[in-house]
Amino acid sequence: MADNASLAALIEALRRLPGVGVKSAQRMAFHLMQHDREGARVLSRTLASAADGIRHCERCHTFTEHQVCDTCLDPSRDAGKLCVVETPADQSAVERTAAYRGLYFVLMGRLSPLDGIGPHEIGLKKLFDRATDGVVREVILATNFTAEGEATAHVIGEGLKSRGLEVTRLARGVPAGSELEYVDLGTIAHALVDRR
Amino acid sequence: MADNASLAALIEALRRLPGVGVKSAQRMAFHLMQHDREGARVLSRTLASAADGIRHCERCHTFTEHQVCDTCLDPSRDAGKLCVVETPADQSAVERTAAYRGLYFVLMGRLSPLDGIGPHEIGLKKLFDRATDGVVREVILATNFTAEGEATAHVIGEGLKSRGLEVTRLARGVPAGSELEYVDLGTIAHALVDRR
Repeated sequence: MADNASLAALIEALRRLPGVGVKSAQRMAFHLMQHDREGARVLSRTLASAADGIRHCERCHTFTEHQVCDTCLDPSRDAGKLCVVETPADQSAVERTAAYRGLYFVLMGRLSPLDGIGPHEIGLKKLFDRATDGVVREVILATNFTAEGEATAHVIGEGLKSRGLEVTRLARGVPAGSELEYVDLGTIAHALVDRR
Repeated sequence: MADNASLAALIEALRRLPGVGVKSAQRMAFHLMQHDREGARVLSRTLASAADGIRHCERCHTFTEHQVCDTCLDPSRDAGKLCVVETPADQSAVERTAAYRGLYFVLMGRLSPLDGIGPHEIGLKKLFDRATDGVVREVILATNFTAEGEATAHVIGEGLKSRGLEVTRLARGVPAGSELEYVDLGTIAHALVDRR
């Protein structure tokens, strides 16, 4: 786009966002410069303050601006339960159900050896230390039901069971509101096995 | 995502980008905070400097950091030809062909009455003043071949012809390298009408 060093730099920087190629980056840069400069300034400020201000909670590993996050500090929560999720977005999904009042451990990823993500990267040692603090009685594995999420749950489950903890996994089954005819066969098979 | 004001603000700001919904914004924020903080800082800096530094070229309306852009200042270009395009990305596409050595006028949009984009928003008066400066002999309409692009070309063409200028339009036809069997019928019909 023309003789424009700062525009070229902006397009290049936008391409660092996941899922954004050169065409999307050009469209975003054009939109911000032509129609929403205030948006560009707001985004610039929020990026800078997030990059400087956000760290990981010492206890549960999620993003927070403090040493320990509000959830971990909440005295009304059941410290005997620890729910293991992959990302803060997953944690927020569990929270929104209002069906869980225990604490969390956020892996910030999943085991994925091909991508170089091993036990260290998802903080397994920290999780094992946390779960064996004497207060936690049950660990609920809420990693995703993908191949990598299942493998991660398996590894964590084996590690914790060998340390004498009760380990459970979110139930697999037919999603609420769905018709059997349109549910994939693997899901129905699991729902049959786990029937109650 | 947790108790996190600066993360929530970042996600909200990312949603101002075109084509980015709440899920994409969460994924982008997670990626930047977990895997690419340096990317977040680079993007923050480039956004701020683009928002402050980029303006419109006084002559052709494209984005530039100067009063007049390098293309308009280039003495080796044929000032008798003026190519009208919708966006800087379109201008850059024409430039990359290396088949055109004239000057440009960038509308920064297209006529779209339903979106509130009228003649004023795309700078038609400025274009007419520019095209009737006595130096320009031919105006080449290179707006997109969409309904809005065609309408824009029509309006500009009528306005300039009434001022006695030679107005041409990019040729419609079969794209280079394509097989007729797979080309849409409207394109083939146009290529028949415009045959040479």
